[in-house]
Amino acid sequence: MSKKQDVALPVIRRLPRYYRFLSYQLEEGRERISSAELSRKMGLTASQIRQDFNCFGGFGQQGYGYNIALLREKIGDILGLNKKINTILVGVGNMGRAIANKMNFESEGFNLSAIFDSNPDAFGKKYQGVEVLDFKTVEEYCQNNDVKAAIVCVPDSAAREVVETLINSGIKVFWNFTHFDILMEYKDNDIVVENVHMNDSLMILRYLSKDI
Amino acid sequence: MSKKQDVALPVIRRLPRYYRFLSYQLEEGRERISSAELSRKMGLTASQIRQDFNCFGGFGQQGYGYNIALLREKIGDILGLNKKINTILVGVGNMGRAIANKMNFESEGFNLSAIFDSNPDAFGKKYQGVEVLDFKTVEEYCQNNDVKAAIVCVPDSAAREVVETLINSGIKVFWNFTHFDILMEYKDNDIVVENVHMNDSLMILRYLSKDI
Repeated sequence: MSKKQDVALPVIRRLPRYYRFLSYQLEEGRERISSAELSRKMGLTASQIRQDFNCFGGFGQQGYGYNIALLREKIGDILGLNKKINTILVGVGNMGRAIANKMNFESEGFNLSAIFDSNPDAFGKKYQGVEVLDFKTVEEYCQNNDVKAAIVCVPDSAAREVVETLINSGIKVFWNFTHFDILMEYKDNDIVVENVHMNDSLMILRYLSKDI
Repeated sequence: MSKKQDVALPVIRRLPRYYRFLSYQLEEGRERISSAELSRKMGLTASQIRQDFNCFGGFGQQGYGYNIALLREKIGDILGLNKKINTILVGVGNMGRAIANKMNFESEGFNLSAIFDSNPDAFGKKYQGVEVLDFKTVEEYCQNNDVKAAIVCVPDSAAREVVETLINSGIKVFWNFTHFDILMEYKDNDIVVENVHMNDSLMILRYLSKDI
């Protein structure tokens, strides 16, 4: 954790991919992996991998390969996955339901404790055991339950108002599925935002398929 | 298009963000933007921006700023957004519905012409005017309609079988929302895959919020 400021974000952004790959290897019952195999299977050069791991002090054992479980655990520690923060999800439209049903928040370091919507038809429904509550009660809920993070899946038209309420409720961490630029609007607040830009991914796909 | 092989993918991956930013500026009625403002508002150094644009021959006019519409159009051309490829979506669970309703495929270079599912209850429903058809007919449909791309939103458990059918139907371009590693399984085929890894995004958020 102490090294956080020293590591460039592009390196950090590669860590989930390593983590995911190592998780698959573990599921397949593997115990060790050579840097050569890691490099071949991940499509990265061995030097790139060494360089990435060296940012955190290196995990390698020359000529002996990596212990998969240990390496995965260390990367998980760096990412902070072992410590949960209390989280809510706002908006159970299609995207909100998909996220509520699909994601395994616990293993990513988030404790999803409530879901909020403004449509009374949604109240009381449960997704992965988590209940939908009235958004009118969100401020009180967040303050009583030490909630720090929110997943924002509301329509773009509602985003500004919802985010303002969440900021007032003490939310500091946003996983943002809307086009509302939270960081720009609240740049003086001490907040953290990760935007999910589906459009960007689709444009990249279009580029990659130009010659098809 | 001829320059495609020369440009590093990390540069390409920044283009959608420029494109999105320039689109916002256009919507606000702006015509020109200085490289200083572009740099400040996007949180990139001016030298980074110049370097990115130079990969494509540069769009700049020293001391006069950029013409926003022109710059946006050129980036769109590089990404290939102006030429549509025929596309289907498979799987109308929550994620499939969210994608079908939310995305503006036309403006990203994709022509979504049909949606497929295996659940008869879904047949005949429409999302943004596009009808849900029986997945049993997908191969015939793709061959008759020159379909090249598929958005795969099926459950992980169905992914292997669905992708095999799509490969046999002539699909070359995959926007993959499952955990099935299409590229690994079909690495000898001439295909293109963009994976949407929600987990990676969530892990990055967890890292960024370690000190909160």
